[in-house]
Amino acid sequence: MINVIVDTLGAERGERVCIEGAVTALGKYDDLGIIFVGRENSTKEILKDLEYDEKRVRFINAEDEIGCGDKPTDAIRYRKESSMYKAIELIKADESINALVTAGSSGAILAGATLKIGRIKGVRRPAFCPLLPTMKRGVVGVCDSGANVECDSLQLAQFALMGSLYIQKAYGVEKPKVALLNVGTEEEKGDELRKETYKKLKETAEINFVGNMESRDLLKGDYDLVVCDGFSGNVLIKSTEGACLEMLKMLKSIMTKNLKNKLGALLLKKDVMEIKDFMDYNNYPGAVILGCKKTVVKSHGSSKSVTMFKSIELAYKIEKAGLNASIAEKTSETLAAE
Amino acid sequence: MINVIVDTLGAERGERVCIEGAVTALGKYDDLGIIFVGRENSTKEILKDLEYDEKRVRFINAEDEIGCGDKPTDAIRYRKESSMYKAIELIKADESINALVTAGSSGAILAGATLKIGRIKGVRRPAFCPLLPTMKRGVVGVCDSGANVECDSLQLAQFALMGSLYIQKAYGVEKPKVALLNVGTEEEKGDELRKETYKKLKETAEINFVGNMESRDLLKGDYDLVVCDGFSGNVLIKSTEGACLEMLKMLKSIMTKNLKNKLGALLLKKDVMEIKDFMDYNNYPGAVILGCKKTVVKSHGSSKSVTMFKSIELAYKIEKAGLNASIAEKTSETLAAE
Repeated sequence: MINVIVDTLGAERGERVCIEGAVTALGKYDDLGIIFVGRENSTKEILKDLEYDEKRVRFINAEDEIGCGDKPTDAIRYRKESSMYKAIELIKADESINALVTAGSSGAILAGATLKIGRIKGVRRPAFCPLLPTMKRGVVGVCDSGANVECDSLQLAQFALMGSLYIQKAYGVEKPKVALLNVGTEEEKGDELRKETYKKLKETAEINFVGNMESRDLLKGDYDLVVCDGFSGNVLIKSTEGACLEMLKMLKSIMTKNLKNKLGALLLKKDVMEIKDFMDYNNYPGAVILGCKKTVVKSHGSSKSVTMFKSIELAYKIEKAGLNASIAEKTSETLAAE
Repeated sequence: MINVIVDTLGAERGERVCIEGAVTALGKYDDLGIIFVGRENSTKEILKDLEYDEKRVRFINAEDEIGCGDKPTDAIRYRKESSMYKAIELIKADESINALVTAGSSGAILAGATLKIGRIKGVRRPAFCPLLPTMKRGVVGVCDSGANVECDSLQLAQFALMGSLYIQKAYGVEKPKVALLNVGTEEEKGDELRKETYKKLKETAEINFVGNMESRDLLKGDYDLVVCDGFSGNVLIKSTEGACLEMLKMLKSIMTKNLKNKLGALLLKKDVMEIKDFMDYNNYPGAVILGCKKTVVKSHGSSKSVTMFKSIELAYKIEKAGLNASIAEKTSETLAAE
């Protein structure tokens, strides 16, 4: 049995998306158990309309919701009645619980994962690894994307190792192609951190390092994982998402501009909607926090039911594949922090 | 008279675009003089077909071309017959020459500007400041975008000051809105560098600092200048350009997919082409190197004639407006490096 906690509070679209996502996952996987942490009454109210295997569902009541405006470290220390606080305490205490999925505050779940659940031995710092769709209709992971704004080369090499194992285990890519985000593709490009990291990645046999990547090539589909410090990773992810979004907005305004354009849009609608769906990050699971003792998946704040389902499915798959044991083993073999 | 050197070598589309761009600028501005540095014979051959005021044109012969594959610092030291070498020596030696425009190697022109032409007194390091079009049909400057991969807070504050003066002088924006690139908008976000810089920007009366900006908001048009270290600035610019380009490619593939789509595309063509033109960076001038004693504009490697014209026009406007004198004055008043 793989037991996954679903935090029903903190999602922008409310509790229902979390609960519906969990119910879909229960329907798909027979050996999945769900622990709903959140307002028990309203969770049960929503569940009334849904069909699911009641034997595999439990409830922990929590009335308080940590918001994005709350200071993460304070929230995770003092908000004892919040769903996220209780979820973290529960996963820490109960060996039989494998994973935690939340669409709540990124800062709070990261603080909770790092300070309370704790790191895998040998891993210096956990890191966020979200996925983006590529033009070759695959995905690319970006690690770190904001958990660690300052990094050293050992951390970056650990991100590469953990991310590789993640892409292997969750997506079946045998030797994920790992690139280092840099200001040019040549080996000697970038600051000291990049030069040192380049060497470490090249020397680490466990990592299929293919060289530096310029940010303009992220979406091309030539890489499975891009390694970066959390500051530039955050810039990379958000500027890519932002630019795609602005382009879609512009396209929409054209398509509704006048009667002629509306007619043209009608003919193209099916394929344009397909692009839109393909680019919509709510059709992909959220970011995994890699390097944490238990599996933690941060689903997008704006998650829909399908997003929550995919995030829960991801947590399930990672646990089935034993990702954390692999990270512990490979890190201690090759790149352990002192 | 504003005298501008045009390096006719190094542009991917060849000499003609440089020469045509210069001729357009000569036609528009009566008090503009052009010094073509490059292969004199072929420049004159191309000029034969064009109409221009011969009295305002001079030639310096240079047969050698510095390529993007050449090591910048070596090229700028030893390739004495190259157009860029000669252009830099000329602008250094001749008081009456105001500016230099090139579409050649970014690394080489930056090395030349920094090591040979030299910094304005008080400026620690020159920086690249390119422009991007925004959704409000304006532009936003990004400084630095790659000249300085490692920076301190004084440098970032200087980028803000120089960039503000540039946007003021070149685009007539009275109080350019300056944002600091960061991983979140709250004041306490980011690493030590960002926190320190935030304070400095807030304290500097000359800078209209409006706070932190997340990279996803770059194109929205709410800012006139974004300040960042060269590493994350490079990531920001290239990922934004890359994402827009991939979206346009995807759109193109849809529009030519089948007969129905082609018909739809026909109806939308005018407006889609308008987006394409609007996003095409060849319709905008290149990046200014701010903080250098003489005005240097690096036009895109793939510049067309119109791009070169705009880059030359930018150099002319900056000189007319006395940007470098303003930078010298304001920097020494408020943010001079020791």
